[in-house]
This record gives sequence, C-alpha cells and structure tokens, in this order.
Amino acid sequence: MCKKLKYGIYVLLNPAKGNGKWDKVIDYFLVTLITLNVFAVILETVDSFYNSYNVYFRIFEKISVYIFTVEYLLRLWACTSETKYNRPIVGRLRYFFSLGALIDLLAFAPFYMPFTRIDLRVVRILRLFRFLRVFKLGRYLNATKLISNVFKSKREELVLCLVVTLSLIIIASSFMYFAENQAQPDKYSSIPATMWWCVTTLTTVGYGDVFPITVIGKILTAFIAILGIGMFALPAGILASGFSAEFQKRKNKEINICPHCGKEIK
Amino acid sequence: MCKKLKYGIYVLLNPAKGNGKWDKVIDYFLVTLITLNVFAVILETVDSFYNSYNVYFRIFEKISVYIFTVEYLLRLWACTSETKYNRPIVGRLRYFFSLGALIDLLAFAPFYMPFTRIDLRVVRILRLFRFLRVFKLGRYLNATKLISNVFKSKREELVLCLVVTLSLIIIASSFMYFAENQAQPDKYSSIPATMWWCVTTLTTVGYGDVFPITVIGKILTAFIAILGIGMFALPAGILASGFSAEFQKRKNKEINICPHCGKEIK
Amino acid sequence: MCKKLKYGIYVLLNPAKGNGKWDKVIDYFLVTLITLNVFAVILETVDSFYNSYNVYFRIFEKISVYIFTVEYLLRLWACTSETKYNRPIVGRLRYFFSLGALIDLLAFAPFYMPFTRIDLRVVRILRLFRFLRVFKLGRYLNATKLISNVFKSKREELVLCLVVTLSLIIIASSFMYFAENQAQPDKYSSIPATMWWCVTTLTTVGYGDVFPITVIGKILTAFIAILGIGMFALPAGILASGFSAEFQKRKNKEINICPHCGKEIK
Amino acid sequence: MCKKLKYGIYVLLNPAKGNGKWDKVIDYFLVTLITLNVFAVILETVDSFYNSYNVYFRIFEKISVYIFTVEYLLRLWACTSETKYNRPIVGRLRYFFSLGALIDLLAFAPFYMPFTRIDLRVVRILRLFRFLRVFKLGRYLNATKLISNVFKSKREELVLCLVVTLSLIIIASSFMYFAENQAQPDKYSSIPATMWWCVTTLTTVGYGDVFPITVIGKILTAFIAILGIGMFALPAGILASGFSAEFQKRKNKEINICPHCGKEIK
Repeated sequence: MCKKLKYGIYVLLNPAKGNGKWDKVIDYFLVTLITLNVFAVILETVDSFYNSYNVYFRIFEKISVYIFTVEYLLRLWACTSETKYNRPIVGRLRYFFSLGALIDLLAFAPFYMPFTRIDLRVVRILRLFRFLRVFKLGRYLNATKLISNVFKSKREELVLCLVVTLSLIIIASSFMYFAENQAQPDKYSSIPATMWWCVTTLTTVGYGDVFPITVIGKILTAFIAILGIGMFALPAGILASGFSAEFQKRKNKEINICPHCGKEIK
Repeated sequence: MCKKLKYGIYVLLNPAKGNGKWDKVIDYFLVTLITLNVFAVILETVDSFYNSYNVYFRIFEKISVYIFTVEYLLRLWACTSETKYNRPIVGRLRYFFSLGALIDLLAFAPFYMPFTRIDLRVVRILRLFRFLRVFKLGRYLNATKLISNVFKSKREELVLCLVVTLSLIIIASSFMYFAENQAQPDKYSSIPATMWWCVTTLTTVGYGDVFPITVIGKILTAFIAILGIGMFALPAGILASGFSAEFQKRKNKEINICPHCGKEIK
Repeated sequence: MCKKLKYGIYVLLNPAKGNGKWDKVIDYFLVTLITLNVFAVILETVDSFYNSYNVYFRIFEKISVYIFTVEYLLRLWACTSETKYNRPIVGRLRYFFSLGALIDLLAFAPFYMPFTRIDLRVVRILRLFRFLRVFKLGRYLNATKLISNVFKSKREELVLCLVVTLSLIIIASSFMYFAENQAQPDKYSSIPATMWWCVTTLTTVGYGDVFPITVIGKILTAFIAILGIGMFALPAGILASGFSAEFQKRKNKEINICPHCGKEIK
Repeated sequence: MCKKLKYGIYVLLNPAKGNGKWDKVIDYFLVTLITLNVFAVILETVDSFYNSYNVYFRIFEKISVYIFTVEYLLRLWACTSETKYNRPIVGRLRYFFSLGALIDLLAFAPFYMPFTRIDLRVVRILRLFRFLRVFKLGRYLNATKLISNVFKSKREELVLCLVVTLSLIIIASSFMYFAENQAQPDKYSSIPATMWWCVTTLTTVGYGDVFPITVIGKILTAFIAILGIGMFALPAGILASGFSAEFQKRKNKEINICPHCGKEIK
C-alpha cells in the first residue's frame, strides 16, 4: 500500500507521467509559486520595495521554503518509482546528485542555515527553468519539439559556427592588441581585455566604452564588424534550412500516399 | 428607406463591403485627413513650427475634429447594418466599446472638454493604424495576407521564442546584478534596473549608458551577447521556413494537375 | 557612312550591345577612370594629402574632365542609334534629361563654370553607380540577375515591411515623446527629434547620444528594441524564401524531363 | 629505405593521409601545443601574469620553439613525398614559400634572432588556423563540408553583396561628409574619416564616438541605418537558400530509387 501511495505521489509531482486532474493542479500551483518567488527575489533588490514590504517578503519566503521543502522530500522519497532511480538507497543518492534536485535543494537549504553568509537566493531564479516545463504540456508541445529537433539536427553546424567565432575573436583580439595597445594602453591593456572589445563589436552591441583610435585599428575594426554580419547570417541561414527540412519531413509523413498509384511511399 | 440610407452610409464608410466609386473616394479622403492629423500632431511638438503656425494648427484641428465627429456618429448609427452589431441598442453599445470605436472617440472627444487637463492628442497618432487599412485594398492585399498567414502559422514558435527570451532576460539580469552590484551600485542598483541593461545588450542596441566593469560581469556579458545572436537567428529562421511553406502551398494550389495523367491532385 | 561611324561609336561606348574587343577596352578604361576620380574626390578631403599633392590633383581633374566631356558629347551624338532615342532632336533631348546623362553632365559641367560657388564634386561619386555596370558583364551576371529577380518578386512584401516599420517609428516616437519630454526636454525636444532616437534604437545602432531615463521610457524602449528584432527577421525571412523559390525555379528549368516517361514537363 | 622512412614521417605529420594510430597521437599533441602557445601569448600580455610567471613562460616558449623547429625541418625534408612537391630542390623551395610553411617558420624563427626588434609573437596566433584542421577529422567533417559547400555555391552572390555594401559605404560617406563636415569638422574631417562612422553605423555597431548632429545628417543616417538592415537580411537569405539547396541535394542523393518502378534516378 505504501508503494501505491508512493507511486501516487510520484505521479502527482510528475504530471507528464499520468493523466489525472490533481497532478496538473499541483503542477500549476508549484509553477505559480516558483514564478512568484522569482518576482519576490527580483523585487527585493529594489530598495524602496524592500524597505516598505520587508515583513511580507519574509513571510512569503518562509511559506515558500516550507512548501518547497515538503515538495523536495516527497520527490526524494517517491523518486524510486522511476525505473532510473528504482534502487532504494543508490537510486535516491543518484537522484539527490542530479542537477534538477541540487538546484531544488540549493533553492531552500540556505534558509535553514542562518549563520552562512553566502547569499544563494539567486539559485531560486534558476528554478525558473522549471517554468519552461509548462511548455511540455498543452499546445506548445509541438512548437517546443520542432525547435529542439531543429537544434539537434543542426547541432554540428552550430557548434562549428561557435568555434569559428571564438577563433575569430582570439585572432582579431591579438591583432587589435598590437595595433591599439600603444595608443590606448589603459583600454587595450592586454589580449583578454581586447577580447571584451572584440565581443561587443562582433555581436554589434558596441557600448562605446572601448573603441579604436588609430587608423590601422579602425581598418581592422571595419573588417571585424563586416565579418560580424556573417556571424548573424550564418546561424540564421542554418536554422532557416533546419526549420524548412523539419517542416518538409512532417509534411512528407502526412502525404505518404503516392497520388498516381495510391500506394504508400516510405 | 431609412434602412436603405443607413446601409448606403454603412457601405460608404466601409469600402471593403461594396464596390462603389464614392466609398473609395471617402475612404481616401479620411485616410488623408488622418495622415495630415498625424503630421499636425508631430509638427506641433516642434516649438519653432508651433509658434509660427499656431493659428493654422488650431483651425485645422477644429475642422478635423468636426469631420471626425460626424464620421463617428454616422458609423455609430449605421453600424447596425453589420450582422455582428445588428441589434439597435445592444449592438450599438457593443460597437461603442469595440477597440476601434474607442480609439476613434478618444481621438476627438477631449477637444470638447476644454477643462480636462489630460493631453490625449497622442491618441490621434493611434489612428495611424487606420492607415494600414489601405493595404487591405488594392495590390498589397496579397502581400498582407501572405505575411499575416506566416505569422499565424508560426505563432506558437514565435511565442516560444519570446518566452525563452524573457526567461533569459530574467535569469541573466539576476546573475549580472549579483556580479556588478558591488562595483557599480548606482547603475546595477536592482534586478529590474539590470533588466534594462540586459534588454539593450540582448537586442544589441548597446547605448553605452550601462556596461559591466568587473571581469565576471564582462564574461557573463560575452555569453549573453553571443546568445543575443540566436535571438535574431531563431525568428529569422522560423519566418524564413514559414514564408517558404506558404509559397510552396500557393504554388501547389496552382499546379494541381498531374503532368503524367492530367488528373487533378488535391 | 556617318551613320555607320555613329553606330560604331555607339557600340564602342555600350559594350553590352556588341561583341568587339575595343568596346570592352574602352569600357574598362572609363570604369577605371571613374574609380580613380572617386578615389581622388575621397583623398582630396584629407587635408595632408591635399596640401602635398594639390598640383597633381588639379592635373588629374583637368584630364578626367576633358575625357568625360568628349565621352559625354559622343554619347549625346550617338544615342540616336538606340531605338528609344532614334529621333534626331527629340531623342537627344530625351537622352539629355535621362537620369544617367544628367549625372554624367553634372560630373564635369561645374568645372567649366569657375564662378559658381556650388561644390558639385560629390556628384562625381554618384558615377560610382557606373562601376556597378561591370557586373552586367562576365561571370557576375548570373548572381546580379538572381538578386534583382528576388527583390522584384518580393517587392510587395518588402514595401509592406518598410511601411509597417515607418508607422511603428511614428507611433513609438509619439509615445516616447510624451514619456521622456518632461525628463529630458533637450534630447526628446519634439516628435521629429524623438524619431532620430527611434531609428537608432529600432535598427539596433544605439549610438548612446540619446537614451531614455524614465521607467516608462525604458519599458517602452524594451518593447521597441524587441520589435526591432522582427525588423531584421522579417526581411531576412522574406528574402530567404525568395532565394529558395528562385533557386527552385531555375532547377525546375534544368530538369524538365520526367524521369518516368522521358517526356518534357513544362 | 630512407625513402620509406621519409614517407613514414610524412604520414605521421599528415594524419589525413594514413590510418595509423601514432599519426593521430602526434597530431593531437601538436594541436594541443599550438593551443597552449596561443594561451601563453594571450596571458603574457596580462602584466600581473607576466610578472609572476615570467620564468615559466620563457621555459615553455623555449621547449615549444625547439619542438616546432624539429617539426618544421621534418616537414621540409619529408614534403617531397607529396606529388605536388616531389622534386627534391624545386619541390622543397615551393613548399618553403607556401603560406602554411611561411607561417610555421615565422612562428619560431624570430626566437633565434635575439637582435631583431620586431615582435612576431602575434604570428604564433595565426597558427590557430591549424587548430581548425581538427575539424577535418572526425564527426565535424560533414558540417565543415556542408558550410564550405554553401559558401562555394553562393560565392558570387556574397561577393556581389560585399561590393554593393562597399559602394554604399563610399557613396554614403561622401554625402555625409558634405552634410556634417561644417558642423563637426573634427569628427567628419574627411571622407575616409567619415567611412569609419559609416561602417560602425551600417553594421549597427554604433560605438557613439561619432554621430551626426545636423538635421540633414540625421535623415541621411536614418536611411543608411535602415539600409543596414538589408545588409544583414540579404546574406542571411542567400545563405539560408544555400543551406536548403545543399540539404535537398544530399537528400536527393540518398533517395535515388524511384518508388514506382524501383529504378535508379540520377
């Protein structure tokens, strides 16, 4: 019976596994609570808000942490219902050290250690990723699958783009350092410092805190900035063809009947 | 007969419903008047213009408001010709509270209330959306339909993009706040303040009013800026595949005759 | 015989019409001279260059102007060989007032009017468009045709993009003016002045000379900047589908033999 | 036998030619050494690092240079195994003057000339291109081929984009110079100086060190910035269609069996 209860709780906390009504209610409640916590962490940093509503923030934090603790313990207890973690001790330990569970733990654990000086409230923001779980349910499932399929099928090309970009940043920064270091020793003080400039230029952010003043530096920058356009065009092109291919694949699955002979085409 | 007159006026004010000559003339006249009003609102804010041509601006405003009032009252009276609003009182009330009618009302109503201090002239700019109505007529209809079809078919993917982007802004801002707050307490004063920086960086605007100065902040920014490229590439790719699919669909509609047997393929 | 000479000169000056050797030589010579003139105009603005090589610039200008004058007069005389301008007087007048001929005239005419104070040397830069003529010859012809075909077939969609963008700039500037004018009356002094800010933000240039400081202004900017991404993604998507369609069309022209029955498919 | 040894060394240094185990080990060792050298050059420019670990940098440089020297001499000796360089003296001279070999030489040669004052350590960064060689091996080969095929097939279109962009920069800079020179003679001092502004605007970097202040200059900038969007959209569209075409080509190669008659379609 305990096993049945455990499985029931497991299903309640993992709505993707069952089709019940209550699991969805609990899921939406938890997602709402996480979202409210994220807003609380954000608003607490605004001094005027914090000073006025300090007490309410404390009460809300307390309640949230208690709920998250109960949720965490139940998850840890019930996780053995999953085949991956089905061994009582080893399975729970493996669940304990999984990334999701560690983030969950870090989100409330510091609250119980008043003497620790480390501020881990930022971890609570990371639980926002949980929010994205909502997309696995309901009508955005299709779009989520589509986008993740495209990224999977174009993984190699995108990684290659990234590596070429990083190589470009290193090479461009080295040249730029030798071009500008003499003229602006405080801004182009070293190659890593020049890399900061290179990233803001290649991504066309261009804050304007660092910019070249020598002629050779400006010519180099012109080359880098024009190459930066390629950095936008290349992944856009790769993703566009990925989406087209995925769309084609889905369409082909639909129309798999030959219009001439009526036979199925695989 | 009154009903016939009402229907005639309804058709005159809604050129998409009929094929007459006068309805188009009235439509172009109203669109021109709206456009001129928009220009008037824009030019009035330029002090040198306002001081020189104050009188003409007042006369033009008076005439425009009277015309818009007459147009509004006629529309309100004639709206019952539309099946959606065909009940005399309830229908007219529903029309009254429709978004388009409210904007129309707000565009001229404040003129009759000289004692209100609220400046609602900006609402007149919103009527510019009326201008876009022109695209529903004539040769841009096809392109308008195409673009709106693509947006409709890719709605889920685009919404997903937006949600991921907003989550990214919240998460990035939280980390950045903890990284830079100590070094620049006036610029990264709170997470919402850091969000402003995050938006200008992710969209690669980069005004340069706020930028990181710590090493950890600069490394985080490099990650965010490079992710920002994806924010451009992803919707570009989605829309590109959407346009290709829409084009394919149209083309398929044209060539629906099998070249082998001459039969139609649906 | 005079007619034959005229036609010979016409062909010499319009290499696209004939297949001779000399017409290409003359074309490359003229394109080179135009390019050198462009470089001369550019370098003359650099004070150190101008002061040192003043004399050579003057000599080069004199020679160029004489050659351009001769070229212009010959073109004007020979233009009647083209069917479009085949009437002796009316044809030459029509050629005289064609855009290309007027730019050609403005490029050298001011030289002969020493008392005019207007500096029309910038017109000489416009002749750079002549340089693009080179692409009509040789191996770039295909790519030139492809790109211009794509722009032609997607003209309506691109124009619609532009109109929506301009409407967005007007609407966003109006709201922004009412949001920021009180806080920064010198920078957001009027709606046209705010438009300058709006263009630099929507195109993600972000010089940083004007940026919002009020909370409402910053929130509006965030919306505008994120919409700005669409301004890049939409034309990219439109052009991508245009290129794909054009490519498909060309491919279909090649493979117009049915693989099943060997008959041609139109 | 010497020939066999030479061929063995040639294969060891060019893993793409053989299938042995040792050649890959040597290749990974050399790539790692090059990468570490790149990091050393980068870190040496950071003063705090250089002062603390000066001695270790010197030792590491010495060891690296000796290894690179041995590698270079072996490559020079063994290069005759390649049919391209198979003539003993002429072949080795041709190899000596090949770009790759010259970069290799410049990467270590200055070390042996202590009296030369030229700092050629930056050349060592260029060896980073060697790092990209890794992509020719293993699982990224496919993606590398795909991207390079797309660039090859769209070379003409991309070159055309670049030429149009450069022409646009020249024309826009000339007009902008005449518009802003009077108002800001120090920033828009000459057309080449204005080109710097034009590149940062067209690529939407927008550092904010130079920006127009006259009305005509701002209107011109608005045009240029909006054209700048095209500069991103055009190559993105070209590359997207290139990737789609390449994908289609590969897919067609796979399914080259007619589903109706089972015969191969070429």
